[in-house]
Amino acid sequence: MSTASTSSHALPGPPNIAERLRPARRTGAVPALHYRPAVPADPEKAAELDRRLEAWARELDLFPAAWKGDFSGFQFGRAVVLQHPGGLDLDRLTVAGKLLLAENIVDSCYCEEDEGRGGSRRGLGGPLIIAQSALDPYHGIPELEEEWREGIRADGPLRSYHFALTDFASFATPSQTDRFVHDIARLHLGYLAEAAWMETGYLPRVWEYLVMRQFNNFRPCLSIVDAVDGYELPEQLYARPEIQRITALACNATTIVNDLYSFTKELASDPDHLNLPQVVAANDRRGLKAAYLKSVGIHNRIMDAFEEESAALAATSPLIARYAEGLAAWVSGNHEWHATNTNRYHLPDYW
Amino acid sequence: MSTASTSSHALPGPPNIAERLRPARRTGAVPALHYRPAVPADPEKAAELDRRLEAWARELDLFPAAWKGDFSGFQFGRAVVLQHPGGLDLDRLTVAGKLLLAENIVDSCYCEEDEGRGGSRRGLGGPLIIAQSALDPYHGIPELEEEWREGIRADGPLRSYHFALTDFASFATPSQTDRFVHDIARLHLGYLAEAAWMETGYLPRVWEYLVMRQFNNFRPCLSIVDAVDGYELPEQLYARPEIQRITALACNATTIVNDLYSFTKELASDPDHLNLPQVVAANDRRGLKAAYLKSVGIHNRIMDAFEEESAALAATSPLIARYAEGLAAWVSGNHEWHATNTNRYHLPDYW
Repeated sequence: MSTASTSSHALPGPPNIAERLRPARRTGAVPALHYRPAVPADPEKAAELDRRLEAWARELDLFPAAWKGDFSGFQFGRAVVLQHPGGLDLDRLTVAGKLLLAENIVDSCYCEEDEGRGGSRRGLGGPLIIAQSALDPYHGIPELEEEWREGIRADGPLRSYHFALTDFASFATPSQTDRFVHDIARLHLGYLAEAAWMETGYLPRVWEYLVMRQFNNFRPCLSIVDAVDGYELPEQLYARPEIQRITALACNATTIVNDLYSFTKELASDPDHLNLPQVVAANDRRGLKAAYLKSVGIHNRIMDAFEEESAALAATSPLIARYAEGLAAWVSGNHEWHATNTNRYHLPDYW
Repeated sequence: MSTASTSSHALPGPPNIAERLRPARRTGAVPALHYRPAVPADPEKAAELDRRLEAWARELDLFPAAWKGDFSGFQFGRAVVLQHPGGLDLDRLTVAGKLLLAENIVDSCYCEEDEGRGGSRRGLGGPLIIAQSALDPYHGIPELEEEWREGIRADGPLRSYHFALTDFASFATPSQTDRFVHDIARLHLGYLAEAAWMETGYLPRVWEYLVMRQFNNFRPCLSIVDAVDGYELPEQLYARPEIQRITALACNATTIVNDLYSFTKELASDPDHLNLPQVVAANDRRGLKAAYLKSVGIHNRIMDAFEEESAALAATSPLIARYAEGLAAWVSGNHEWHATNTNRYHLPDYW
C-alpha cells in the first residue's frame, strides 16, 4: 500500500498528515492516503470500450439530451480497464461498462436534483422500485407482465438497467446475477436513505453516515469481479460472513475514496451534500480541513483491515485468494481513476 | 384449489362472481377466491409459540407501550403453525415467529403513520437503512462498529430484527441467511415506494402497483420454508429464473390475498391507503365492488400460474417438489389465517 510518495503502511498521526497536505495540490493523489498502484490502463482498450459503450447507448437511446458531454468526461472505458485488469475479454469488460453506465444514468436521471434531468429526492422510492424491477422482473398475469415490459422499454434509465443485466446474465451464473440484483437493492436503499436525510435536513452521526455509505456504495461494481474475470466464487463461499466482511471492507474503502476526491466538487455544486468530511466536521465541531484529515485516517484503517483480513482468508483457498485480488485490483484501479480524472476531481485550492 | 364452497379450478366469469358475493358475509373466505385448505393448526402448539414469542419480546423489551393488545389479536403463533405445517420442530417455528414479529414491529413503528408509534412516510429511507444494517452488518473500524452496535441495541425494532436473524442464522446456512437479507431489502424498497406514492399523492397504474406489491410482500416469510422445514434448497437451484418465478408467483398470490382481506379495514382507517381494489377502481373508473371482483380474478389467475408452473418444475426434482409444496402450504396457511382472523379482517357490510 502506498501513500502519495511513500510505500509506508504506518498510519501517520495528524501533524504528519497536515504537513504533507502542503503545498496545495489541484490534482494527483490525496496526501497521506493509503493506496496501491493500479495496473496501467491500455488506452487503445479504453478507447475501444468507449466506442462500444457509446454505440450501445445510442442504439438503445439511453442518453438524455444533455448527456453527451458527460460521456467522454466520465471516461467509462478507462474506468473499467483500470478496475478490471484481469477481465477475461473485451466482451466482459464491455458488459462491466454497460452496468457502470446504467448505474450512472439511473443515479443521474432519478436521484440527482441538481443535474436538471428530473431527479427528485422527494418521492424517489417510486421511480426506484420500478428501476429495481428492471433487474428483478415482475411476475403475474400475461397482460400485466406485458404492461410492465412496455413500461421498462419506454424509459432510458430502465432500458439501461434491463439490457445491461440481460447481457451480464448471458455469461454470469444465476447466483452471480442474483448477487448483482441484491447489490443494486442495497444501492437503491442507500440512495433512498441519503435522499431522506437531504429532504428532511437530518444530520447523521458519523456511524449512521457510514452505514448509509455501505449501501450507497460501489459494491455492485466490485462484486462482479469474478464474473468479469471469467470464473465464479461459488455462492456458498461468497455468502460466508468472513467473505461478506472483506467484500464490505474493500467496498467501503473505495467508496470513501470517492467522498475524499469528490469533496471539492460537491462543496462547490451543493454545499449541503453529505460526504464524510462534512459529516465529521459537523459532528465533531471541527474545521473542514481537520475533518478531512480524520476522514483520510478512517479510510486508511479500513484499507488496512481489508488487506490484513483478506490476506488471512486468501491463505485458506486459491479461489478466495483470486477473488480478494480482484477486489484489491478494483480498489486500486478506482483510486487511479479518481486521482487522474481531473475533469471531475481536484483538491481544495486553499490547502 | 377450492373456492369458498366448491373445488372448481375454473375461473368464474364476473356475473357468476357477483352472484356468489350475496349474501353479505362479515367473516369467512372471500367469495370466488381460489385457495386450498390449510392443514389445521394445533391450538396447543400455537399457544406455546405465543408464550415463547411473548417471553422473547419481553426479555428484549421489544414492545412499544401500546403494543400488548395487538400481540394476542395478531395470533402470531397460530399464523406460524398454519403457514409452516412441515416445520421441523418448535424451535424453528419459534424463529419463524420471531422474524414475523420483528417484521411487524418495524413496519408498525417505522412505516405506519396512523398507528401513532412515530412512523413517518417522509424521511422513511433514514430509519430503514439503519434497520437493514441490523441484518446486513456495518464493517469499518472498531470504534465505529461499536457505535453502530450500540445504535442497534438502543432501539426495539432494530433489536427485534437483529436478534431474530441471529437465531435464524444459528440453523440456516449462510446462503439461506443471505436470501432472507435480500428479501428484507426487497421489502424495504417496497415500503419506500408505497410511502413515496402516499407522500406525493401519486396514483400508480395497476402494473406499477403490483410491481411495488411484489416488493412490499410476504416473500421474506415464504422464502424461509426450507430452513424452517429442516433442509436447504441449494442456492444454485433457488437462483434459477424458473424457481425465482414460482417463488414470486406464490408470494404475489398470497400478498394479494392480504389486499383483499384488508380492504375493509384499510378503507375504514385510511381511505387513501393503496390496495389492489382501490387502484383498479381508480384506474378503470369503475366502482369498488367491480374493482374488487376484478382483483379477485387477478389473484386467481396468479394462483393458477403458480400451481401449474410449480407442478411442472416439481416433476423435475424432489427437492424442488418439496420447496414448491412448502410455498403452497404457506399460501394455504396464510389464507386460513386471514379468513379466520376476525379481529382484523371482514368483508364489507354492504356486499
